[in-house]
Amino acid sequence: MKADFFNVLSVADFVRVLRDFVPLNAEFVPFDATDGRVLAQDVISPEDLPMAPRSCMDGYAIRAQDIFGASEMNPAYLERVGTVRIEAPADFVLRGGECASIVTGGVLPEGADAVIMVEHTEDLGTGTVEMRKSLAPCDNVMLRGEDAEAGRVALYAGTLMRPQEVGLLAALGEDEVAVYKRPSIAILSTGDELVPVTRKPAVGQVRDVNSSMLACSIRRAGGIPVQYGLIKDDVDSLEAAVRKALAENDAVFLSGGSSVGTRDLTVEVMERIEGMQVVNHGVAISPGKPLILARAGNKAVWGLPGQVASAQVVMFVLGMPFVRHLAGMRNAFDQRYWPARRAVLTRNLASKPGREDYVRVSVDASGDVLRATPVLGKSGLLRTLILSQGVIRIPSDSEGVYEGAECDVLLF
Amino acid sequence: MKADFFNVLSVADFVRVLRDFVPLNAEFVPFDATDGRVLAQDVISPEDLPMAPRSCMDGYAIRAQDIFGASEMNPAYLERVGTVRIEAPADFVLRGGECASIVTGGVLPEGADAVIMVEHTEDLGTGTVEMRKSLAPCDNVMLRGEDAEAGRVALYAGTLMRPQEVGLLAALGEDEVAVYKRPSIAILSTGDELVPVTRKPAVGQVRDVNSSMLACSIRRAGGIPVQYGLIKDDVDSLEAAVRKALAENDAVFLSGGSSVGTRDLTVEVMERIEGMQVVNHGVAISPGKPLILARAGNKAVWGLPGQVASAQVVMFVLGMPFVRHLAGMRNAFDQRYWPARRAVLTRNLASKPGREDYVRVSVDASGDVLRATPVLGKSGLLRTLILSQGVIRIPSDSEGVYEGAECDVLLF
Repeated sequence: MKADFFNVLSVADFVRVLRDFVPLNAEFVPFDATDGRVLAQDVISPEDLPMAPRSCMDGYAIRAQDIFGASEMNPAYLERVGTVRIEAPADFVLRGGECASIVTGGVLPEGADAVIMVEHTEDLGTGTVEMRKSLAPCDNVMLRGEDAEAGRVALYAGTLMRPQEVGLLAALGEDEVAVYKRPSIAILSTGDELVPVTRKPAVGQVRDVNSSMLACSIRRAGGIPVQYGLIKDDVDSLEAAVRKALAENDAVFLSGGSSVGTRDLTVEVMERIEGMQVVNHGVAISPGKPLILARAGNKAVWGLPGQVASAQVVMFVLGMPFVRHLAGMRNAFDQRYWPARRAVLTRNLASKPGREDYVRVSVDASGDVLRATPVLGKSGLLRTLILSQGVIRIPSDSEGVYEGAECDVLLF
Repeated sequence: MKADFFNVLSVADFVRVLRDFVPLNAEFVPFDATDGRVLAQDVISPEDLPMAPRSCMDGYAIRAQDIFGASEMNPAYLERVGTVRIEAPADFVLRGGECASIVTGGVLPEGADAVIMVEHTEDLGTGTVEMRKSLAPCDNVMLRGEDAEAGRVALYAGTLMRPQEVGLLAALGEDEVAVYKRPSIAILSTGDELVPVTRKPAVGQVRDVNSSMLACSIRRAGGIPVQYGLIKDDVDSLEAAVRKALAENDAVFLSGGSSVGTRDLTVEVMERIEGMQVVNHGVAISPGKPLILARAGNKAVWGLPGQVASAQVVMFVLGMPFVRHLAGMRNAFDQRYWPARRAVLTRNLASKPGREDYVRVSVDASGDVLRATPVLGKSGLLRTLILSQGVIRIPSDSEGVYEGAECDVLLF
């Protein structure tokens, strides 16, 4: 039982260790395959975007000074000298007292500096257009270079790509950009009671649940799960499997070591591998305390708690952010930015100071207010996870939260 | 301009139309490929899970009645008659006054009904174990069938699969289950000013940004984007393209029709297709008002606003939920459950009653409090989307929100 009583890290200290790992190398990928990835290099804009000033509206290109002071009661009158088609710039120059009809996206003719919405005008049908509003220069115009300027950084290294950032790459004509590699994560299951999912268990045996759950979580975090299947619960088999997995992947997640014996075995294997240091023998987190981490260079070996709910909570709070961190995400561990919903707690929640509690909760709506109800139950069961939509964090210096308090439910 | 002034639906009415579409048919997929999908049929458990009562702890299997009233001051003493190994059931029966050591996950021997944690015991080394705590029957035991009962529904149709639900399928040995198909969504871009991403635009031209952005958003919502590229901006080309896309996909998203001319063209094409009804000529949403929807049977054709930010906000608020709805997600449109963060608004936000406003905001943390700052700018630019982490909804009956108010930022 020694492992339980020494070197238990606080969550904050454990995260500090994780943040010390270095994100993976970069690779070039097609621009439209970058959604969800993190840029490894600045993207420098090769050109101005927009390339020329464009109209934001359907209306008339004008010179703002020509209609200063115009209003419904005191309109200005301009002469319509042409039409700007969307696909080609005007072949005329706008002079004082003139206007040109223009559609959204049309390039402003030379001489024009603003666009008046068609709703604020009236075409008098004689080549004259009535202007019923005053404008300032640049009104309703997308300026040249407003989205990106030639030679300047359009997107910084570290940017998490979303549809809009992919859109910017499309706009700039970037075919390929450098992003951090997706971490390749080995999954090993130990535990002599486990049988493959495809086999019917005898009494005393259970199917290997954690491998599939871990694979899904790793995929959700942007990693590539590599399943090594069931490893025999003896030190030589486990050592051989860990060495192989470590050589072939960026990190290794070991699952199944819930009993003291298996946990000790995991530590023994970690200590046998040269250059590998066991970082801790536990984390002050509930559920999930038996979490073990070892490190060899920039590669981590995680010994996950064997209880299925503990393993999954630890994956959500620490494992998935670690995968994102390796994939280049900045502040992956900063829970303030994680998807969450504010909800009112439906009952008191006690917590033991000295550890961070992550209480599984179900969320339901009552009108516009969400209510969070703790899902209690044994962490060896899947049930509590299936009934929950997320977790509420109770900090280690807190003795609990009262019914009626507003909490952030971290959604999983 | 007619289209702007009649048949503008409220967001609520528009959502009502969308909810009328029927989710797609089911298909069978391997259990470990179901993460993010929605079950189309109940999953009936073929067996009890756990198959037998199992220990939640490392400790001793006991009969609770033997240690009723035991405490630190007044321990009970039991005779240790064996050890339960994890992978096989005990070959003995526990009788009155007896205990058996057991590891987490071990199957309780016949006769035992509870497990006492090793921390509350002391092995006196003579075959006798001291028990320092009282237990009730079932304490620290996962009961037979507690996760799932043979012949009962383990997961209901409509369940959104997450790692834990995939884990339950693994535990039950389900190789394949029925989930709703992923919607195949056609993306068509119109607009004669557009050139493919790979081409250098002349002045007046712009690269096709929306196709890539839409593809990313559709993929994020669980759909399969099918890009049809740039369609010439005339009624015959567009009609042919829409017919083909409609025949080959579950829905069609048309982008690029920002100018009045293109919008009218879109409506004309929709009206030409037999059995197709134009549902609306706009939605009371900002940005995104020029959104058009047409329907033929269970297939929708969306005419998205041409302005890039308007299109993306409309996709986020209505388009992506629609894709999820087709993929079987219940309450896909219910924003109360969407990922969000509560943040304090850094400035007043005025809003025009009668339309729902979605204000793009950037979010930054100041201590534990998040602050949301509106990102203002032209909706033809990508910039406002790139600087934003989400949107704040201002309901149609509101005139705005004051600085300092707490708002839910819907994260994108």
